[in-house]
Amino acid sequence: MQELKSYLMGSFQSGEAEGTQELFDPSTGEVVATTSTQGLDLAGAVAFAREKGGPALRAMTFAERGAMLKAMSKVLYEKRDELLAISARNAGTTRSDGKYDVDGATGTLAYYASLGKKLGDRRYLVEGEGEQLTRSARFWGVHVKQPIRGVAVHINAFNFPAWGFAEKAAVALLAGVPVITKPATDTAWLTYECIRLIVEANILPEGALQLLCGEPGDLLSHLGPQDALAFTGSARTGALLRGGEAVVHRSTRVNVEADSLNAAVVGPDIEVGSPTWQMLVRDMAKEITQKTGQKCTATRRIFVPSDKLDALKDALAEELDLIKYGHPDSEGVRMGPLASKRQQKDCEDGIAELKADGAEVAYQFAGEPIDGHAEGAFFPSTLLIHRAPKDAKLVHEREVFGPVSTLMPYETIEDAIELVGRGEGGLVASAYTNDRAVYAALIEGLGPWSGRLLLGSKKVADQAIPIGMVLPSCIHGGPGRAGGGEELGGERGLDFYLQRTAVQGDRALLSKTLGF
Amino acid sequence: MQELKSYLMGSFQSGEAEGTQELFDPSTGEVVATTSTQGLDLAGAVAFAREKGGPALRAMTFAERGAMLKAMSKVLYEKRDELLAISARNAGTTRSDGKYDVDGATGTLAYYASLGKKLGDRRYLVEGEGEQLTRSARFWGVHVKQPIRGVAVHINAFNFPAWGFAEKAAVALLAGVPVITKPATDTAWLTYECIRLIVEANILPEGALQLLCGEPGDLLSHLGPQDALAFTGSARTGALLRGGEAVVHRSTRVNVEADSLNAAVVGPDIEVGSPTWQMLVRDMAKEITQKTGQKCTATRRIFVPSDKLDALKDALAEELDLIKYGHPDSEGVRMGPLASKRQQKDCEDGIAELKADGAEVAYQFAGEPIDGHAEGAFFPSTLLIHRAPKDAKLVHEREVFGPVSTLMPYETIEDAIELVGRGEGGLVASAYTNDRAVYAALIEGLGPWSGRLLLGSKKVADQAIPIGMVLPSCIHGGPGRAGGGEELGGERGLDFYLQRTAVQGDRALLSKTLGF
Repeated sequence: MQELKSYLMGSFQSGEAEGTQELFDPSTGEVVATTSTQGLDLAGAVAFAREKGGPALRAMTFAERGAMLKAMSKVLYEKRDELLAISARNAGTTRSDGKYDVDGATGTLAYYASLGKKLGDRRYLVEGEGEQLTRSARFWGVHVKQPIRGVAVHINAFNFPAWGFAEKAAVALLAGVPVITKPATDTAWLTYECIRLIVEANILPEGALQLLCGEPGDLLSHLGPQDALAFTGSARTGALLRGGEAVVHRSTRVNVEADSLNAAVVGPDIEVGSPTWQMLVRDMAKEITQKTGQKCTATRRIFVPSDKLDALKDALAEELDLIKYGHPDSEGVRMGPLASKRQQKDCEDGIAELKADGAEVAYQFAGEPIDGHAEGAFFPSTLLIHRAPKDAKLVHEREVFGPVSTLMPYETIEDAIELVGRGEGGLVASAYTNDRAVYAALIEGLGPWSGRLLLGSKKVADQAIPIGMVLPSCIHGGPGRAGGGEELGGERGLDFYLQRTAVQGDRALLSKTLGF
Repeated sequence: MQELKSYLMGSFQSGEAEGTQELFDPSTGEVVATTSTQGLDLAGAVAFAREKGGPALRAMTFAERGAMLKAMSKVLYEKRDELLAISARNAGTTRSDGKYDVDGATGTLAYYASLGKKLGDRRYLVEGEGEQLTRSARFWGVHVKQPIRGVAVHINAFNFPAWGFAEKAAVALLAGVPVITKPATDTAWLTYECIRLIVEANILPEGALQLLCGEPGDLLSHLGPQDALAFTGSARTGALLRGGEAVVHRSTRVNVEADSLNAAVVGPDIEVGSPTWQMLVRDMAKEITQKTGQKCTATRRIFVPSDKLDALKDALAEELDLIKYGHPDSEGVRMGPLASKRQQKDCEDGIAELKADGAEVAYQFAGEPIDGHAEGAFFPSTLLIHRAPKDAKLVHEREVFGPVSTLMPYETIEDAIELVGRGEGGLVASAYTNDRAVYAALIEGLGPWSGRLLLGSKKVADQAIPIGMVLPSCIHGGPGRAGGGEELGGERGLDFYLQRTAVQGDRALLSKTLGF
């Protein structure tokens, strides 16, 4: 039995026994690890980050911080197989789904390592050369972005224990801000192992990276005006954090990345069987089944011209039939279980709610999971149809966080855009068209509701990334229901951890001091 | 008696009589205007903005929106004298203080008009030319910033009824987002008159600009995921808005610009009587008395090397003695009353609280206000000293929003920086030094706590702007206690009203559609 400790104030620490929580193998229901955070000194951890980690990181240049990220990426990559094994054991991932998480982590760290190298020898950012502010050529203004003086608290979701930790930590550390990372308890083993490897490799200055492995306790009550809180998870918890004391009364920065009802729109011009159609079918099948549908970016609502609804349903059913589910170690399995029995129950409930809202089950993978187990959290891929999406309510509001999407017909492209908007904001939307007018209409219509927009068309039919893939160079986050946040996006992501200040004074002195 | 109506859904409307509030002349206590918003259809106003104003603004190019702002600036400038008279009557401003507000409004509108011209013929923004996202040169990503599809609600403070309205409206309208502006009731007459002039000149499309003249009623309950709420005022109200249903649960964008304990630091190298010293004394006297100290950006805490504390006190007392207060229309008056009896009471209470915290009154303008009135909200300029700022608490927390600042001694520059930080974030800090090492230390030390930093030195001693002056080209807002927000800053300010979307697809199609 693996005990997961928290890494706080320079050492691995166990919480009190009575606060112990168990982690399971979702394929078998077997307990694989335990953790407790009860009684840990979280005020001490916050102070340690501020007093040790912050000054150490701020004394480093971007290039030095980048080199540190590179070393983190390397140490994780070297232990890739061990990490994939833990992922399979504690998160039920197939090798391919585990790689999506683990390689996402090392890749994002490596990306920000390169950015650090590019930003070079400076310790903070200066926006351009500034400008003259009055009639005098001597009185000058320039905007400077310096790391906030507090700690970045990262609260992550259960679905990406490696990437979720790494994508947030990479950006904060590169900005010069120390991190306390808190994975979701159910799948925390993988995050724990990542941190253990990084600590063992002695890459980071003291206090730069701490791990709280399980329940957050009173962590947030210690945050103040120079701290930042980044969260990925449910809209409900997101609202709780955003409405909390630190954010509301002490202006703690907050970024929320929440569940959303991501949509796909099939353009009216896409012919059944064409290359773009084939791209669409592949994409949708992947969105439904990859990570057993447990991605914040997974497509939940598919809008298709009404005369092609049945053709798409049939094509998807055929594709989904090829993706067998079961124990991730077993031969032929392409989709593992959900991450927990709780998620399994939530999927069952969600489908029942959508049916009560007027949806019907159009397809469900037939047959039992390969090498399944009665205590496993397996769930068959499921395609719903709602034939009257304008009358529907829950289908635009209730995310079923598993291998489940809903097909819906539309009549005009304006209708489709309006229906996407009913989701009230998503992390990503996708659309398929080769018609330039439709292409432009979709960018304008879907953009304001989406943090990211993937446009499929024939010339990229074999070259696009999967819809759900989050690249470090593009922003991640979306308006409204998706939380209203923004992460990554290359250098853009640093802004969350930097205070921008308009500095006004003698041009010559500013120029010498700031190096512009 | 002037009745102030609200301008909603295309017409000027009166609220119900029983909700009537009175506005006063703070020099005499006389009632000068009334307003009521009771019973007005605010859900209708929000819908009108979204359905009429938004589409009309989005159909315009930046250049067209800029031309609209230019016309707004012009119509206000043409009626400058009438506006200054209203300001004197309802806000008690001297001509100079009135101009600070009114010319700030026309200037900011004109600045954003020029920016619109520069941004030209496009309707939304594209960040650069994007980048290749995969091994394929065809699959491309670019970040697009489009106006949010909702309404911008602007809740302004009583101290800048013209500028406060204009600086927020200019940015939202240029971004392509319709505005509902709500001035503080006490001084709403000037905002009302600005809107009346703009409406009469028929400059804006229907629904682009609405006015709610008084109490906000249930306005905020109608906001959702595509709306934005920008607030200037007290930290308490800011927290209320930020913790509200729309922001917390529907991801309504929010920007808070709140009271703060803005600090000034006198460098250890500044000799008494030197040009930089003279700049300091002039600046401090202006910050204390301009707009009777009722600026969010006014300097409240002045940190001075302990051996120069008395010299600065004496120099400031001499300067403040020259600034006579009284009725703004009277000869020789350089400082008007506070904006209301409530503010007068708050200043009295605030000074009592700071005295209980260990401050003493080092100077107070002697003598009665010129042409004063028993019902007037006059208040003499006041300088406090707190000799043990490390032991003080309230002096770093309680803003006395009037002609009141506190002098405090410090020993080392590190101490001074630490003391500034105790204010937990300010809109602006200032510092005076000609020592390059101190200059650099102050930028790094004060920057993270400040939205803006004005550095005084000998070569800009006669060329700098007043500390409290907010230029549209520089960001305005600050961390922590100052609300954690950011406004203006030239093009930077538009971001609050734009949804940034990472658009991924065929490079050629994207390039043709978006014009990069």
